[in-house]
Amino acid sequence: MAGPFDAIFVPDAVREAVSGTAWMRAMLEAEAALAAAQADEGLISAEAAAEVAAACRQEYEIGGRETANPVVPLARALREAAPEAHKGATSQDILDTAAMLVARRARALIVAELDGVVAACARLADGHRGTVMAGRTLMQQAQPITFGLKAAGWLSGVASARDGLSQVELAAQLGGPVGVQSPALTARFAERLELAAPPLPWHADRGRVARLGAALAIAAGACEKVALDVVLLAQNEVGEVAESSEGGRGGSSAMPHKRNPVGAVRARAAARQVRGAVGVLLEAMAGEHERAAGAWQSEWNALASALAGTGGAAWSLREALDGLTVDAERMARNVDGAPDLTTVDALIDRALELA
Amino acid sequence: MAGPFDAIFVPDAVREAVSGTAWMRAMLEAEAALAAAQADEGLISAEAAAEVAAACRQEYEIGGRETANPVVPLARALREAAPEAHKGATSQDILDTAAMLVARRARALIVAELDGVVAACARLADGHRGTVMAGRTLMQQAQPITFGLKAAGWLSGVASARDGLSQVELAAQLGGPVGVQSPALTARFAERLELAAPPLPWHADRGRVARLGAALAIAAGACEKVALDVVLLAQNEVGEVAESSEGGRGGSSAMPHKRNPVGAVRARAAARQVRGAVGVLLEAMAGEHERAAGAWQSEWNALASALAGTGGAAWSLREALDGLTVDAERMARNVDGAPDLTTVDALIDRALELA
Amino acid sequence: MAGPFDAIFVPDAVREAVSGTAWMRAMLEAEAALAAAQADEGLISAEAAAEVAAACRQEYEIGGRETANPVVPLARALREAAPEAHKGATSQDILDTAAMLVARRARALIVAELDGVVAACARLADGHRGTVMAGRTLMQQAQPITFGLKAAGWLSGVASARDGLSQVELAAQLGGPVGVQSPALTARFAERLELAAPPLPWHADRGRVARLGAALAIAAGACEKVALDVVLLAQNEVGEVAESSEGGRGGSSAMPHKRNPVGAVRARAAARQVRGAVGVLLEAMAGEHERAAGAWQSEWNALASALAGTGGAAWSLREALDGLTVDAERMARNVDGAPDLTTVDALIDRALELA
Amino acid sequence: MAGPFDAIFVPDAVREAVSGTAWMRAMLEAEAALAAAQADEGLISAEAAAEVAAACRQEYEIGGRETANPVVPLARALREAAPEAHKGATSQDILDTAAMLVARRARALIVAELDGVVAACARLADGHRGTVMAGRTLMQQAQPITFGLKAAGWLSGVASARDGLSQVELAAQLGGPVGVQSPALTARFAERLELAAPPLPWHADRGRVARLGAALAIAAGACEKVALDVVLLAQNEVGEVAESSEGGRGGSSAMPHKRNPVGAVRARAAARQVRGAVGVLLEAMAGEHERAAGAWQSEWNALASALAGTGGAAWSLREALDGLTVDAERMARNVDGAPDLTTVDALIDRALELA
Repeated sequence: MAGPFDAIFVPDAVREAVSGTAWMRAMLEAEAALAAAQADEGLISAEAAAEVAAACRQEYEIGGRETANPVVPLARALREAAPEAHKGATSQDILDTAAMLVARRARALIVAELDGVVAACARLADGHRGTVMAGRTLMQQAQPITFGLKAAGWLSGVASARDGLSQVELAAQLGGPVGVQSPALTARFAERLELAAPPLPWHADRGRVARLGAALAIAAGACEKVALDVVLLAQNEVGEVAESSEGGRGGSSAMPHKRNPVGAVRARAAARQVRGAVGVLLEAMAGEHERAAGAWQSEWNALASALAGTGGAAWSLREALDGLTVDAERMARNVDGAPDLTTVDALIDRALELA
Repeated sequence: MAGPFDAIFVPDAVREAVSGTAWMRAMLEAEAALAAAQADEGLISAEAAAEVAAACRQEYEIGGRETANPVVPLARALREAAPEAHKGATSQDILDTAAMLVARRARALIVAELDGVVAACARLADGHRGTVMAGRTLMQQAQPITFGLKAAGWLSGVASARDGLSQVELAAQLGGPVGVQSPALTARFAERLELAAPPLPWHADRGRVARLGAALAIAAGACEKVALDVVLLAQNEVGEVAESSEGGRGGSSAMPHKRNPVGAVRARAAARQVRGAVGVLLEAMAGEHERAAGAWQSEWNALASALAGTGGAAWSLREALDGLTVDAERMARNVDGAPDLTTVDALIDRALELA
Repeated sequence: MAGPFDAIFVPDAVREAVSGTAWMRAMLEAEAALAAAQADEGLISAEAAAEVAAACRQEYEIGGRETANPVVPLARALREAAPEAHKGATSQDILDTAAMLVARRARALIVAELDGVVAACARLADGHRGTVMAGRTLMQQAQPITFGLKAAGWLSGVASARDGLSQVELAAQLGGPVGVQSPALTARFAERLELAAPPLPWHADRGRVARLGAALAIAAGACEKVALDVVLLAQNEVGEVAESSEGGRGGSSAMPHKRNPVGAVRARAAARQVRGAVGVLLEAMAGEHERAAGAWQSEWNALASALAGTGGAAWSLREALDGLTVDAERMARNVDGAPDLTTVDALIDRALELA
Repeated sequence: MAGPFDAIFVPDAVREAVSGTAWMRAMLEAEAALAAAQADEGLISAEAAAEVAAACRQEYEIGGRETANPVVPLARALREAAPEAHKGATSQDILDTAAMLVARRARALIVAELDGVVAACARLADGHRGTVMAGRTLMQQAQPITFGLKAAGWLSGVASARDGLSQVELAAQLGGPVGVQSPALTARFAERLELAAPPLPWHADRGRVARLGAALAIAAGACEKVALDVVLLAQNEVGEVAESSEGGRGGSSAMPHKRNPVGAVRARAAARQVRGAVGVLLEAMAGEHERAAGAWQSEWNALASALAGTGGAAWSLREALDGLTVDAERMARNVDGAPDLTTVDALIDRALELA
């Protein structure tokens, strides 16, 4: 709920992708696809479906206080223009399917940023195979590693989180009022929207949303780990990396000399929101009967927040890494000895395969 | 972050009170108060303070991606118009103080809704002292109570949560870059804003924000408990209460006969967001050194969400209770026997004193 | 941390599987496997490995306050008996690998209980294909379904959560002090323990633990949803199911007539602990450098709690469903009409394929 | 649930105070006090009360799987020995009151450790008033402070968290099956146990437990902030403080030269568990009707965890600070300039008043 500072923490494209406008567009897309699928199945005429499609090209605002549900007033408005609109559907069909459409678009943006993070890690890993630095455990210098190996570890964590997020299945939902819905129509509906067709309606099985949420939290956490390392390496007393200070980045209102690691800071702040949101999604699994009285409704904003926060974390981290200055000399000064570079090379090669 | 469905779950006044616009106004108020306090202390001239005040009456947008901080660009803009603006302050002074101003306004709205909930509970408690109903434990009928006693219990929970929230001290923050700040100026600054003057700057002691967050989560939880009871009592098979269905409230897109307990549903959905946000605030207590690199920045949106969600929960519950229909006959049918009404009366009287 | 009531909520086998004794046994197993793998690779002699194996058959207690780490005193003790013990390893190698071994054993128990839940759902789905009951949305009667369809939905949610949990890869960890470890030895080590060999050491990439935690939370949530439905259906006013009351199950200290749905109640209580624990695991992803100073150490108890809670939720729910009495007559009385049974049958058939 | 590593993270006295044995003793104390109060009120004879007291001096184990409640078998056992035992009470009366007794004992231990932390901070603040060091914001050197001022800030945060925890009211609970309970007997019962007498029974108002949980999370968070600063200052590259290495403290299994900040590490790990547990307690506020079917039962282990974790965090931090070595020379080398020491002194004086 409420993101007054989203302009700082979330990239514009992701903000737009999870905005009320985007959700409304996704609901309209679902309504139109439903009518089209019903026409495909001969349940309504092609003309009626076209009428629905036309109505779905109009603009509507998110409302629904009186019904705790934005689809109720939307369906009413659509039916005025196109009487066959929303036929046989329940509001949850439209909202859940819209959530998957919103998630698909936002996920594509997030994955692109995660790809950027992975690519940056790969460049750092490959370019700093032999840049010796201190390995640090419990925040104490332990034994030498190389910066390339560190970046390979970052890569591995972010790449597997990205893969996990990419693999979450996004499925259409069509169950009608209580889930008694023929699979044939659902398959058509899903096909129209290029979403997966679920084996059963999932109105009361919120595992799909929880899995998406968990994958987002894990992706955000993987970004946060890298951001934390960047912040630690950028400390003046360590001084091994610095974020770009181009164009006034990283300045302070009271101390113009400072060069704050702002990308990493933003990434950490954004990632933390995701954990909060995912707690809401996990709790929402336990909903009552065929549609929950509160739990389901709590998912909408929480999913939007989880997407926004993960997008923000990936974006800010990608910026931080793309502009990262590595001070190999300082790294060398902070450490004695060197690791076995053959082993290091082998590990970096393995990591690059994960990119 | 991101509240695409806030129009459904948060009352307009609370949305406005935690919006980016409201935060910006609060930052400007803090900047103006700082200059005024500095003039009071003879640190800048009255003319300079007036110049700052004038600059603070202009409009500004929330920016600050490059600095992970909206005050940096704001301070720059103010100084162009009024060179003595933001003098000796750091961005955290302005943002933390603004957070307290935002919280004060939002809290007043929330407490007013909680007062409304308490008043509704008091009416129900007093009006149904002898309305016998089943007491239910582990969701099984146990022994008789009265609906008045149940409402008295609701009252007690919400009233003490309201009192706890009201008592959270909201203090100005003035520490300069690293917290070396004379208490005298802080006292003036606080006085100008009618906030408490803290014993020490609290830039690195986030207990104040965490306490506020916890009080919000407890208030939201107290509302959620009542909302859950309403939802349970409104089940068709129980049928002991119903929310108002005036003006199409509680309708469904597929089943026009339904009368959903929408106020309680919205309250539950809103309250759950608060728990997510408060997790972020509690985690933010552990911040690095004199200003955290991620934890502090994570508070801003989370605090806004916690205020919005609590406001939404209180508002929706108040509406639900204000329009509640109580079916005393059905209650009687669902139970055998009666409780000791003298004891019940004594307990209700005690509860009413808490209102 | 601290489970004074685990005797109530966690089955004995799972309690034992996540106990300190079990963790210690797993650490010893990891130490022995490490020595064996090193002998396989010719790094130590077979005699030395046998000496380590013998030392690992002794009993040790969990200690390590002075080092914030139970492996430090254990390695010291082992080396006294077998000088080649713990060679080249770091404590994290042993602890992380032990965590995977503990997780494997506990997961097998949990999955067996989840299988039992799925089997019970399948029996109910198949046996009540045509048992008409009310579908309920927002806790209001909506349109008719059958109890078989409801159970099919339960099945679908629990089965996919079970599958997700089963698919989490459990990998050995071997990185030495800072992760510079030849993959060949890791592969041997993993093979000895029948764990996956990871592409890179994962000492600083905690995604593996977070993924396991998330899968546990989702499994617990899937159980909690069913338990909530059972509790709701068991309300006296609904009366459509009841848990077994054999042997005094479900009695009360003050009201002997009560028949509480205790299995479902326990399942709900246990599942909620998992969410708390998983929050800790997700937060732990952001750890510092090559071994975190607090985050990593927070995983151990949290993972044990997540396993215990999920095991408890699955066990209690399985008991509840195995002893469930279904009152088809009462279901019929609570509803008008019937759903399309052909569609219902098709959906149930699909669900049974997921079992 | 499940704390296999509690021996590392929780001091023995706190472990004992939240153990099953301690909970059982507290339940017996509550049962004995109830009988004594009933004798005071003339509801049972003094002989009967003595009989109950005698039965309560026996030993019992925590059981109650069949009832999801440990008081049901306990009350049965007590009644066999003393027929007037548990008269008019419900299991929740005994368990909730026992929870408050357990909390009181554990809180006393926790507050004593927090007092130790505050005292250590006071010593450091007073002893290092003029020890100049770098103030650091966003992990970058900002402007000079003194270590005394930093310690004063720590003191302020921990002292106010301690005060908040101390002020949480611990009240007896007596409501009988559904909360119809005369205040007079409750007052006697509370007096016997030296607990507060609540205005109303709080069986269904879980704000009391949530407030306690929130105060624990805030105290743990305040400790975690200090521990984080210690860990950061102890980094080799900063080197401004070090924990004691007496008796092998802080050693590593692979790197004997290391001097890990183990007290701070343990404190951080313990504090994180509290957040998880408090999430469970906040969620538990929304319980059904007169006794919840799952939410209430989830509180018991979560409260024990929150107490254990907070006790662990305070204890480990106190140890860390008591043995802290401060390297004033290194601090001086890491900074240019000095703060205004008059202001610093004034702020430290204010902080010392909070001790």
